[in-house]
Amino acid sequence: MAVYTEVPDEELTAFLAAYDIGALLSYKGIAEGVENSNYMLHTDKGAYFLTLYEKRVAARDLPFFLGLMIHLAEHGINCPTPIRNRKGEVLGELAGRPAVIVSFLEGVHVRRPQPRHCVEVGRALAQMHLAGRDFSLTRPNALNIDGWGPLFDSCRDGADALAPGLAQDLDRELGILARDWPRDLPAGVIHADLFPDNVFFIGDRLSGLIDFYFACNDAFAYDLAICLNAWCFESDGAFNITKARALLQAYAQVRPLSAAELRALPLLARGAALRFLLTRLYDWINQPPGAFVKPKNPKEYLIRLRFHRGVSSPAGYGLDA
Amino acid sequence: MAVYTEVPDEELTAFLAAYDIGALLSYKGIAEGVENSNYMLHTDKGAYFLTLYEKRVAARDLPFFLGLMIHLAEHGINCPTPIRNRKGEVLGELAGRPAVIVSFLEGVHVRRPQPRHCVEVGRALAQMHLAGRDFSLTRPNALNIDGWGPLFDSCRDGADALAPGLAQDLDRELGILARDWPRDLPAGVIHADLFPDNVFFIGDRLSGLIDFYFACNDAFAYDLAICLNAWCFESDGAFNITKARALLQAYAQVRPLSAAELRALPLLARGAALRFLLTRLYDWINQPPGAFVKPKNPKEYLIRLRFHRGVSSPAGYGLDA
Repeated sequence: MAVYTEVPDEELTAFLAAYDIGALLSYKGIAEGVENSNYMLHTDKGAYFLTLYEKRVAARDLPFFLGLMIHLAEHGINCPTPIRNRKGEVLGELAGRPAVIVSFLEGVHVRRPQPRHCVEVGRALAQMHLAGRDFSLTRPNALNIDGWGPLFDSCRDGADALAPGLAQDLDRELGILARDWPRDLPAGVIHADLFPDNVFFIGDRLSGLIDFYFACNDAFAYDLAICLNAWCFESDGAFNITKARALLQAYAQVRPLSAAELRALPLLARGAALRFLLTRLYDWINQPPGAFVKPKNPKEYLIRLRFHRGVSSPAGYGLDA
Repeated sequence: MAVYTEVPDEELTAFLAAYDIGALLSYKGIAEGVENSNYMLHTDKGAYFLTLYEKRVAARDLPFFLGLMIHLAEHGINCPTPIRNRKGEVLGELAGRPAVIVSFLEGVHVRRPQPRHCVEVGRALAQMHLAGRDFSLTRPNALNIDGWGPLFDSCRDGADALAPGLAQDLDRELGILARDWPRDLPAGVIHADLFPDNVFFIGDRLSGLIDFYFACNDAFAYDLAICLNAWCFESDGAFNITKARALLQAYAQVRPLSAAELRALPLLARGAALRFLLTRLYDWINQPPGAFVKPKNPKEYLIRLRFHRGVSSPAGYGLDA
């Protein structure tokens, strides 16, 4: 939650001169985003968003991310759309950082999602999966099942401090997932991080999706399993089957789920829970002393992981068996 | 540089329902302002600014600050203007904090002021002084000459660590100022903090003044002396007489300076330099361990104070003797 790079007004004015977006009226650093520095711009043509990429986003991945946003926007998905400058370029440089101007997407993320929001998210996720099918670039999922083992190795020492016996528990879980993980489900471009803070609403209507900086190629149903984890648990840890049913049914109305995808859901949901448990555990252990941003508690995802272990069929998520 | 108070969307929506400013489209926490939490709002009627007052702004002073902004706006000064809700109230409560919605003021603050900016600032400061003359509320200047002694007492121990001999130097300075300080100059409502980050420009045209949370009643020429310190020194510490002349002449064209005010300028400028030296020294000494915001270096103002000591007449600021 910060602006990492201060942009002097003269540099910004010079940068904007290459774009056909009007004269600058104001710009404000935005207190959100942990990966990048973000500014909101007003020009006499409207509102725009300026992002400066800090080191956590690899420059080599930017063509994929930016190209995807343009592709999705061209295929009817509401998302921030990178603006080309007069030379036709999307990616520029400002204050020594890779920088991009995107359209400003109006909307508010919901802090307490309701089943009606899950309906909207399920539908939008399926629409995104369909819209991304003919996108030409690919990006492997660095945080897929093959990455979880090495990730856990790097933070294993902190596991038992978080919960006694956790290291052994996760070793066993990794073994089960490695053995049973489905490798041939329908796949394509997934968002991979579609949490409530990345979905905008105006009133009850979904107005767009943001933050494609984890997007990659992987199984569509795994993306849905991430959303099951992100949208269908209450703050007290309880699973809300009404939300899950709303999410899954709305998704399937746009992109029907195959029998194999339905069967795999509980295992995919375990994998998704483990993926966020591991990255949170890593951040938990590696927090710099005196850090400003407190890392999120990994235990939330341990609770979710354990819930999914008890689910044996899609009926556990509210779907007809 | 932070948002101290997170505002849940449901609470914001309920808060906004009392105002006639349209339906909420988006809101973003703004990474500026060390005293308050600020959000930029877009509604279907336009852009607004939401401020939540944190504890550093005394609630008892809010009627003065908000009333002043309304008064100045009604008298032709471009500044954020508090919006009344349907009950006619300006001050509300949101997320447990006093909260106000103000009009959004377009503009950019200049990082490297030029003489042409000083002309605009001088004129705007004089216009503000004139516009504030018939404002009915008053607020004493807590950081006036009578407050500097106690303030210095609270941070004297750190003075010599900053610069050897500084404590004795400042004791002497306080004595001189107490003896010679002019008490009968034309006075009224002053901004008291009109630094470059509180003045907005669109292109080279001044678009408005912001941040009235140090405003108070004091000598007009003291406010001008603050601007001399804030606008007319280069980053290497050098005084820029061209900027000073531009500032003072533009001010005097709108509100002519009396002989007494002109004569007092060097002493007022010493006082203004001392005031910012002392508050910076205080912040320097009292920085919390691991603080996110690094306090500004007090030495800048020691250099300015010493410069003003060498000025014996307004000619030192570029005015005809």
